[in-house]
Amino acid sequence: MNRKMILYILGILLLSEAGLMLLPVAVDLIYRENVFVSYLITAAILAVVGFVLTRIKPNNKTIYSRDGFVIVSLGWILLSLFGALPFFLNGEIPNYLDAVFETVSGFTTTGASILTDVEALSHANLFWRSFTHWIGGMGVLVFVMAVLPLAGGGGNLHLMRAESPGPDVGKLVPKSISTARILYGIYIALSVLEFILLLIGGMPLFDSITLTFGTAGTGGFGVLNSSVASYNTYLQTVITIFMALFGVNFNIYFLIICGRIKDILKSEELRAYIIIMLSAIVLISFDIRNYFGSAFEAFHHAAFQVSSVMTTTGYSTVDFNQWPDLSRVIMLIVMCIGACAGSTGGGIKVSRILLALKNARRELKHLLHPRSVSVVKFDGKKVNDEVIQSTNVYLFLYVIIMALSMLIVSFDNVDLVSNFSGVIATLNNIGPGLEAVGATGNYSVYNWFSKCVFIVDMLLGRLEIFPMLLLFSRKPKSRKVV
Amino acid sequence: MNRKMILYILGILLLSEAGLMLLPVAVDLIYRENVFVSYLITAAILAVVGFVLTRIKPNNKTIYSRDGFVIVSLGWILLSLFGALPFFLNGEIPNYLDAVFETVSGFTTTGASILTDVEALSHANLFWRSFTHWIGGMGVLVFVMAVLPLAGGGGNLHLMRAESPGPDVGKLVPKSISTARILYGIYIALSVLEFILLLIGGMPLFDSITLTFGTAGTGGFGVLNSSVASYNTYLQTVITIFMALFGVNFNIYFLIICGRIKDILKSEELRAYIIIMLSAIVLISFDIRNYFGSAFEAFHHAAFQVSSVMTTTGYSTVDFNQWPDLSRVIMLIVMCIGACAGSTGGGIKVSRILLALKNARRELKHLLHPRSVSVVKFDGKKVNDEVIQSTNVYLFLYVIIMALSMLIVSFDNVDLVSNFSGVIATLNNIGPGLEAVGATGNYSVYNWFSKCVFIVDMLLGRLEIFPMLLLFSRKPKSRKVV
Repeated sequence: MNRKMILYILGILLLSEAGLMLLPVAVDLIYRENVFVSYLITAAILAVVGFVLTRIKPNNKTIYSRDGFVIVSLGWILLSLFGALPFFLNGEIPNYLDAVFETVSGFTTTGASILTDVEALSHANLFWRSFTHWIGGMGVLVFVMAVLPLAGGGGNLHLMRAESPGPDVGKLVPKSISTARILYGIYIALSVLEFILLLIGGMPLFDSITLTFGTAGTGGFGVLNSSVASYNTYLQTVITIFMALFGVNFNIYFLIICGRIKDILKSEELRAYIIIMLSAIVLISFDIRNYFGSAFEAFHHAAFQVSSVMTTTGYSTVDFNQWPDLSRVIMLIVMCIGACAGSTGGGIKVSRILLALKNARRELKHLLHPRSVSVVKFDGKKVNDEVIQSTNVYLFLYVIIMALSMLIVSFDNVDLVSNFSGVIATLNNIGPGLEAVGATGNYSVYNWFSKCVFIVDMLLGRLEIFPMLLLFSRKPKSRKVV
Repeated sequence: MNRKMILYILGILLLSEAGLMLLPVAVDLIYRENVFVSYLITAAILAVVGFVLTRIKPNNKTIYSRDGFVIVSLGWILLSLFGALPFFLNGEIPNYLDAVFETVSGFTTTGASILTDVEALSHANLFWRSFTHWIGGMGVLVFVMAVLPLAGGGGNLHLMRAESPGPDVGKLVPKSISTARILYGIYIALSVLEFILLLIGGMPLFDSITLTFGTAGTGGFGVLNSSVASYNTYLQTVITIFMALFGVNFNIYFLIICGRIKDILKSEELRAYIIIMLSAIVLISFDIRNYFGSAFEAFHHAAFQVSSVMTTTGYSTVDFNQWPDLSRVIMLIVMCIGACAGSTGGGIKVSRILLALKNARRELKHLLHPRSVSVVKFDGKKVNDEVIQSTNVYLFLYVIIMALSMLIVSFDNVDLVSNFSGVIATLNNIGPGLEAVGATGNYSVYNWFSKCVFIVDMLLGRLEIFPMLLLFSRKPKSRKVV
């Protein structure tokens, strides 16, 4: 383990966050709500700590794979702990744990909130809250590294892989600084496009910026208590479409830029993503047909809500907790499935489920013909057995974490459906669940201990389980048998 | 595929069922409730169909692995369809689908019921209902084969493996006719012991027989509307202990007979089974301490209920649906974990979860040291990667089936918690769930379509998924890539 290098990179991360804090300062200078001091103080603390850490000059710039996981886990935790300070200092979230909850929810692009009245926040706080979505969506380290390469050798690769692991079946996971820059370019371009379309539709400038942040990062923090319900149908439609777009694997956009349309049509994940989303929308539209004045309205709201939870964004135009059970179950299922790998969305990811299904088909075939040997193919290419093994372990740990979280949260006296959907909504980085934590509710009903569980779940979900678990693993002796 | 041999063995199975039907006939002749005709008619139909099928003389007695799965799946379905006939013919379950539900629930040792008043049934029907538990517990084919070997070569092995697959980590899965006989001997001995202990405690003869059937098969059908609540504390304690004993891997008893006590202490599954069960009992005892007059009473009922649902039996002395959420969630979790492999209990099985956890630990280690190679060990022996792959696929399919069942059942207008727990309770062959399908409720609230889903789930759970899925698979072309 290269301790010096770990501290050095964490220092760089904190310095970057200090720089980012100047944006809410600027916002406050426009709106004159006198919260900029809290951001300046935090920025100063970050700068000092970051400066001290970056004085540690590592002799050896190599990053080992274990270091990558440690940096990513600690990095996200530190950024959240410091990022929560302004809310606490300016008193708009008086409880520090709540502020941490809100900030982790922001960076992990969950969008779960402990606030009962969002509109009471100052513009700077609203901006910072939504901005954490935008930064967290593509990954904090990827953001820093797109600007300056940090490590020598394959170190950058280790870092980026630790931050956005996913099942490595696509062709363009951020494998190098240059691809990271291309992906960030696409991210910015799509964000600007959405921002313009929202402005054209008459959305106020501030709302357009913050809602674009929330959509792009598939986060879900809004600036109104009614989330997206009070905007007009055009604006809701724009957001529906952009949520779905940000849930697509960014490789697809890269292929579009390269003009390789044929490769896009071959993408099994994209096809499954579209099929699942449309099926859910059609089924729900039918199920809620009597809840709205017209078939179009039912379809419009079904599309918005499905696009929102499947991409794990969490915006809402209506309270889907009021829908019939069939629709609520479909919502829970698409919540768990989640978006495409290589997108800003969370959840299990469509490609993991496809891989596991293909593997199950292979196993069934193997049972019939014990001596047959067959391979799993994805997008026409053979998938390594290591990837399948890793996917299986991921899915198993996902279920175990869900069950354990459910168990712990049940010590708190909220109802079963809230607990269950709350765990799903945080672990998959969605935000709202059902009942008490539904679209019109929030997580303030839970005690501090349950909030800690949800915080850990949000981090586990965003960092895809492994880095967080490895942070707590002892340094193992080599060759010890499991 | 050896079609003739499949039909021949199915014929033998139906003839065996015809023979078993003479037992309820005898019961009816004692109690003189005039339902014996329905059993005689069914036995006659079974005998005719069985006779015709066994006239098909297979030239080749070989059974291929695919044939094993087909025989087991079709066998269980046919036995249930015919086994339901008496209930329908004597009119005590006037709807044939309900009768099938009840019979599948019996053979699969689920114990879920559509009856609102069990006590209204005649003794013969109550006997047959409970007897299906006892037969289903060890496996219908194992039962027949313990008496007469059916197939040539490795055919018996294929059949027994298809009926009780489990992760093959123990030493004594029924691998041959002789081990099948030893296991049946243990099963009978334990049943007789429980029966005597119940009689000594003052339980009526008929109740002692039927409740022993229900405990031994980890089924859960009772003969009173109050399940086991009205019996005295001694009787409830005997049942608590025997439910737990029938949830243990039968290899353990085999080792006891052989005097290999050291091997028992090394059994990781047994240790985990005991630890999980005791932890659940302690946690729940504490959680429900204010629901009962004394700490002992709370412990007694916690122990009964946990032993009942973890072994997937489903008897109850109190309505655990009334307990606080923490206890209810613990109950749901131990329901899913289930009993030991190689027992009569259902659920995922403790050993599968242990294997998956060990595999996850190996994967995490592999992430830290990508070039390290380590093996998973169980009870000190290396586990083949094929077993791990198969376990992972099993767990994945289990979750997928759970989600799909939830989705379909939600079309019916019952509540979310009932649907969720009902799917868990049938897929894991437990019986009662929460809310509408709780210990005091039953499955009559669901429509015919949902009942069909539950029937399929019970069969999937008892036959451990693979045989049922393979029944519907097309004959695959060899070497086709998945």
